[in-house]
Amino acid sequence: MGDPLDALRPLMAAHNPPLDAVIVPSEDYHQSEYVSARDKRREFVSGFTGSAGLALITMSDARLWTDGRYFLQANQELSDRWKLMRIGEDSTLENWISDNLPNEATVGVDPWCVSVDTAQRWENIFAKKQQRLVQLSVNLVDEVWKSRPPAETNPVIVHPIEYAGRTVAEKLTELREKLTKEKACGIIFTALDEVAWLFNVRGSDVDYCPVVHAFAIVTTGSAYYYVDKRKVSTEVNSYMEENGIEVRDYGAVSSDVGLLASGQLNSASGKSELTASGKSELTANGKSEVRENDNSRIWVDPGTCCYALYSNLKPDQVFLQQSPLALAKAIKNPVELDGLRKAHIRDGAAVVQYLAWLDKQMQENYGAAGYFLEPEGTHKRKHVETGKLTEVSASDKLESFRASKEHFRGLSFPTISSVGPNAAVIHYQPESNTCLELDADKIYLCDSGAQYVDGTTDITRTVHFGKPSAHEKACYTAVLKGHIALGAARFPNGTNGHVLDILARVPLWKYGLDYRHGTGHGIGSYLNVHEGPHMISFKPQARNVPLQASMAVTDEPGYYEDGNFGIRLENVLIVNEANTKFNFGEKGYLSFEHITWAPYQKKLMDVSLLAPDEIEWVNTYHSRCKEILAPYLDESEMAWLKRATEPVTAV
Amino acid sequence: MGDPLDALRPLMAAHNPPLDAVIVPSEDYHQSEYVSARDKRREFVSGFTGSAGLALITMSDARLWTDGRYFLQANQELSDRWKLMRIGEDSTLENWISDNLPNEATVGVDPWCVSVDTAQRWENIFAKKQQRLVQLSVNLVDEVWKSRPPAETNPVIVHPIEYAGRTVAEKLTELREKLTKEKACGIIFTALDEVAWLFNVRGSDVDYCPVVHAFAIVTTGSAYYYVDKRKVSTEVNSYMEENGIEVRDYGAVSSDVGLLASGQLNSASGKSELTASGKSELTANGKSEVRENDNSRIWVDPGTCCYALYSNLKPDQVFLQQSPLALAKAIKNPVELDGLRKAHIRDGAAVVQYLAWLDKQMQENYGAAGYFLEPEGTHKRKHVETGKLTEVSASDKLESFRASKEHFRGLSFPTISSVGPNAAVIHYQPESNTCLELDADKIYLCDSGAQYVDGTTDITRTVHFGKPSAHEKACYTAVLKGHIALGAARFPNGTNGHVLDILARVPLWKYGLDYRHGTGHGIGSYLNVHEGPHMISFKPQARNVPLQASMAVTDEPGYYEDGNFGIRLENVLIVNEANTKFNFGEKGYLSFEHITWAPYQKKLMDVSLLAPDEIEWVNTYHSRCKEILAPYLDESEMAWLKRATEPVTAV
Repeated sequence: MGDPLDALRPLMAAHNPPLDAVIVPSEDYHQSEYVSARDKRREFVSGFTGSAGLALITMSDARLWTDGRYFLQANQELSDRWKLMRIGEDSTLENWISDNLPNEATVGVDPWCVSVDTAQRWENIFAKKQQRLVQLSVNLVDEVWKSRPPAETNPVIVHPIEYAGRTVAEKLTELREKLTKEKACGIIFTALDEVAWLFNVRGSDVDYCPVVHAFAIVTTGSAYYYVDKRKVSTEVNSYMEENGIEVRDYGAVSSDVGLLASGQLNSASGKSELTASGKSELTANGKSEVRENDNSRIWVDPGTCCYALYSNLKPDQVFLQQSPLALAKAIKNPVELDGLRKAHIRDGAAVVQYLAWLDKQMQENYGAAGYFLEPEGTHKRKHVETGKLTEVSASDKLESFRASKEHFRGLSFPTISSVGPNAAVIHYQPESNTCLELDADKIYLCDSGAQYVDGTTDITRTVHFGKPSAHEKACYTAVLKGHIALGAARFPNGTNGHVLDILARVPLWKYGLDYRHGTGHGIGSYLNVHEGPHMISFKPQARNVPLQASMAVTDEPGYYEDGNFGIRLENVLIVNEANTKFNFGEKGYLSFEHITWAPYQKKLMDVSLLAPDEIEWVNTYHSRCKEILAPYLDESEMAWLKRATEPVTAV
Repeated sequence: MGDPLDALRPLMAAHNPPLDAVIVPSEDYHQSEYVSARDKRREFVSGFTGSAGLALITMSDARLWTDGRYFLQANQELSDRWKLMRIGEDSTLENWISDNLPNEATVGVDPWCVSVDTAQRWENIFAKKQQRLVQLSVNLVDEVWKSRPPAETNPVIVHPIEYAGRTVAEKLTELREKLTKEKACGIIFTALDEVAWLFNVRGSDVDYCPVVHAFAIVTTGSAYYYVDKRKVSTEVNSYMEENGIEVRDYGAVSSDVGLLASGQLNSASGKSELTASGKSELTANGKSEVRENDNSRIWVDPGTCCYALYSNLKPDQVFLQQSPLALAKAIKNPVELDGLRKAHIRDGAAVVQYLAWLDKQMQENYGAAGYFLEPEGTHKRKHVETGKLTEVSASDKLESFRASKEHFRGLSFPTISSVGPNAAVIHYQPESNTCLELDADKIYLCDSGAQYVDGTTDITRTVHFGKPSAHEKACYTAVLKGHIALGAARFPNGTNGHVLDILARVPLWKYGLDYRHGTGHGIGSYLNVHEGPHMISFKPQARNVPLQASMAVTDEPGYYEDGNFGIRLENVLIVNEANTKFNFGEKGYLSFEHITWAPYQKKLMDVSLLAPDEIEWVNTYHSRCKEILAPYLDESEMAWLKRATEPVTAV
């Protein structure tokens, strides 16, 4: 197969109007972070496999924008026909186009693959030089992608109330109250996890994310589910009917949004959707006039809704605001919280089983000193071929430990199983034909997680089976100090993740160290492993959402030294009301509950750098680990865990 | 004298148009924080003496808005005809007006006393109900203020180059480069410290601030100084001439801004100000047309320029952006940094002399156990009348120690000398007729500073001469931990004070404690004690300015318990490049140099709550204190300091 660039450019030239450039985003029609194989257009065209990135192809140039997690990986994967653009360091895509493409240039994009926010931001910049964003009616990448996988037909599965915690009826009632409050007659949902959460359904269309390719529209009187009907069994169809949800064809969403816009979207039962006063009216000049108090606004989340659907609406009838489901989904209900805790206990047991197993393998097959002992010199013995362990085969073993646990449904993201320099590639994904072998002389970083019916997990531990250097220990300890400082913080209600982020960095900054990623993300309840709207990050969007009780969020600082090693430690935390001695300002204070259970490696700690309260924190956490995981481990695993959680003593 | 409200309201009714409300800001014509006696209009009308606040008078209502520093004080000072509005908790002034005054209401303000930013923010909100901001041509408060003090006629003094560090010529050259870069033909300066800094002059028009009431206009070819000419001696006039600065009457600034707007502002020497291409041109319809590339923009700082002067300009010719002097002044030159360090050493010596003296007085006159000893019970002995010490008399003694130091020119703000419950009033200012007596059983908080020719100082220490309670010690220690955490931080270039602020709060948040003020402000070089544009604060404006090497900033967390006590610890810090072991991201890292020298009281520390590195920090700081202050202290003072700085030992 030739380079897709060579096939694309003639199509760009032949397009009406001819295109000076085409943008290929990473996202699918739903602005998903993880997409199915057939939606990996940006990967197909550029060769870069990371989860986030944006390709720009002009007639003479090809550039890929990605963020700090992927600088190293993109450099390795892109051919020399591509130039890497570092988000945060290089010019943005829209500024680069404005600065480098001619006046009145035409820039094509598939409007299904770009959000309203993003498309409008581009258009604003392009306007400076009368450049134009062209909404392509055909995706040019699909045209040249001969071997594009076919559409999935995986079944829609009902997510039982014993895990969901709240009925669809309850969720719809609450949602409609919000519509009424905002004077909206309807809302369009395009984010796959929002549709799944609202209707209490799950699926398997996208690897790692238990979702179905679907849209939803909810009006004050009706609810519509747009999905490939082959995925909907008779039982699920009945479930939908019982919940007042009408199942329509996936492709019907576009025309239905048009009907919604003109007040003509009716359910099959024929009842009218909009009250007379809610209808938009035509004025004498033929323009639609929408009065503010008429409850005829249509709610669209500009961050997740694709530009294609938005373009079917009249700008003055659109209410552009973050989806009300973002926050509703982020604040877990008690059943979801209970499930999250339980899933993390089983998941922690699998990680401990894995570490104990790996320790044994490293000693037996590689002559390593092992998880606990620090040899005098570095390891020298060559491994025996029969016991060869690679990043992939090791992570397969980890998956098998997870798969043995109750309610396991798959991984929540591709396991980052990384040795030495690969651990410095923040979102490294090993491939069996190219991955490294385990090495008793190098750091091993493992960031992994699973989908269980009762909850989604995400954990990172970094270990060494030989003799870590003093520098590696100092860096590990700085990361651990940041991890503890954030995870042990208490803070008043109203505090957002933008200001908390620094707590995890200050111990690293002391040495001039840092990491190029945020510190924490929300996590779903048997849904996407990355979930908003809150986050703990230096990014400006982290300012917008205060952390609230019953949110879940990760705590994952790191340090990455290109070409040498990487360190990351990650737990999932639940935000709780804190029982502080005082309550200054009557604001109420919050704290974090760690729900991830697996030991930190004592051998990698430089205890002289830990403060007494940090040592106490580690010992308390380790002691809880031992208690909580005991029921899930056999005798030898438990013996290993007891040794791993023996108290750290101050030097 | 009757209540000014009763005199004001008839004037409001008789005004054309009749006024539904009048806003009386705290600021003078220069948007100063500290204003001269004759500019304390808001204080005159409301009785509230704090430095920040905003009065609103309607025909039936009177309200005062102020911030968290002043809630307690305002409650004490306002009569029952006034209602306190708490900034951050209650509705904002503009929203209150919009919600409570009728449609088309008229709201008067003196446009010289309000900034462009503020006036425009109000107008935007008022527009929702067709309410109107009326620019008063006469200040109604001045009309009713029969005993208003006369204008000052204090001399303008040249600030010598050995303290200023840079010549006026250098500053003007750099400024004009910025004008050219921004395509501006001129700039208007209204902030008193900017005018003083640019022209290297000082004065004494405003208590605590060594400034002169003056405006400045600088064009690409000329510079104008608007000042009451009675203040300008022949020598200063010559100095101005030598520096190419034309002295004009204070009142001429308004018409000169008009001339600047029409391209007709000419210096006395008669040379034309604007090149032909830079002139605005009249089009056929008589409207002025300003082309973007014509270098005819006029730079106005919307945060400091008054609405009155701005209103003389055409909106499309104004370049609204923060004054370039804000940052230029904040980044101290080496001479200024040297002066700041030296001034703080002399100032620290005065504070130590004061604390040693106060310790002796408290023991001799009040039978206190003293600064070092903690008595078994609380203090009981009644003081002897002859040795009576009050908040005011004590602070007078402190001033006398400062006045004995080289280069002393006065205080930099009213000394906050506060006993027990008064210490909880964040900006408390004792009055001799009402202030409290010192008390061996209560905390004493002293926040003070001075103006020296080589630098401005600001320091807070909190002490106890008897037996502090366990709670007071726990709170003091939490404040100290925050003070140390911020002051010892290292952080990459680009970090702003918004994200650093949390470092000082986290140790307090642990107990559910907090404080209702920012953590740090910039400080002038023999100029205003509060100086922007950077700050360390939770306030959104702290996001806009990264800290940079050679800035000065305070580190002053606190804790205030209404009715009981207050604690604050404050040092001035200089931002330096940090010598970190690594330099991840090649950004360069920064750290703080403490330049304030006075001990923290060991008796108030609960050492069990301090980590080893915090104890080490205190001991190192104390040891430096002793070395640095030694040359300025007599034998008994030095003995006291040696005892005060004996190492803290872990419990």
